[in-house]
Amino acid sequence: MSSARWLNKVKWDDQGLVPVIAQEAITNDVLMFAWMNREALTKTVETGEAVYWSRSRKKLWHKGEESGHFQKVLEMRLDCDEDVVLLKIEQVGGIACHTGRHSCFFQKFDGSLNDGDWVTADPIVDDLDSTHL
Amino acid sequence: MSSARWLNKVKWDDQGLVPVIAQEAITNDVLMFAWMNREALTKTVETGEAVYWSRSRKKLWHKGEESGHFQKVLEMRLDCDEDVVLLKIEQVGGIACHTGRHSCFFQKFDGSLNDGDWVTADPIVDDLDSTHL
Repeated sequence: MSSARWLNKVKWDDQGLVPVIAQEAITNDVLMFAWMNREALTKTVETGEAVYWSRSRKKLWHKGEESGHFQKVLEMRLDCDEDVVLLKIEQVGGIACHTGRHSCFFQKFDGSLNDGDWVTADPIVDDLDSTHL
Repeated sequence: MSSARWLNKVKWDDQGLVPVIAQEAITNDVLMFAWMNREALTKTVETGEAVYWSRSRKKLWHKGEESGHFQKVLEMRLDCDEDVVLLKIEQVGGIACHTGRHSCFFQKFDGSLNDGDWVTADPIVDDLDSTHL
């Protein structure tokens, strides 16, 4: 694995992970949130596609490996505390969420403190690539 | 503290926290990333301004309480796994970062795997409110 200085600059948490926000470059929409370890971030830079660390499956997760919804990384940023990464991506198929939605953040808070709830606000969309076949 | 159902729907981590992304509503820029506990999220809804949990200071942090750079919450979203919150905000003063920048994500990756580095890509900006005085 690479021991490059830029990798050492990232402040990995006590599990060796860093939070990652994936933002669609063309719309600026926030599509998803996930985690990376050193190997995932290395592979992301090597391949130019988002590779995360799946905390539930405890293994590397090349986003899109099953769905075909890969994320091409156009730009990568680090925050002021150097402990959060922001990816500017091109979302293949236009779908980032496993529910078939554009963004994972499709539940919107509606109401007030005592009667509020999270309400589904965005539709399931067609795979943009399929519609072009 | 409120025990509202919408608060229980959030999957708090083993430290009782949830990651929060603050996105500027008007530009869609991602401005910062922080954490909330139940009380912080409750106060955010109560006050309509972002209140985070400072993990370093171990206390509630009403964003802007020292800088004046409050964040007015216009919309609040929850992701598909119900363990990440996205805030659409109006950033008072146009500055979210303690370094005086618009966004905390001002370091951009430049180069390749072996020679890459994080390079400051965004300027320190004037407080938009001050310039209007």
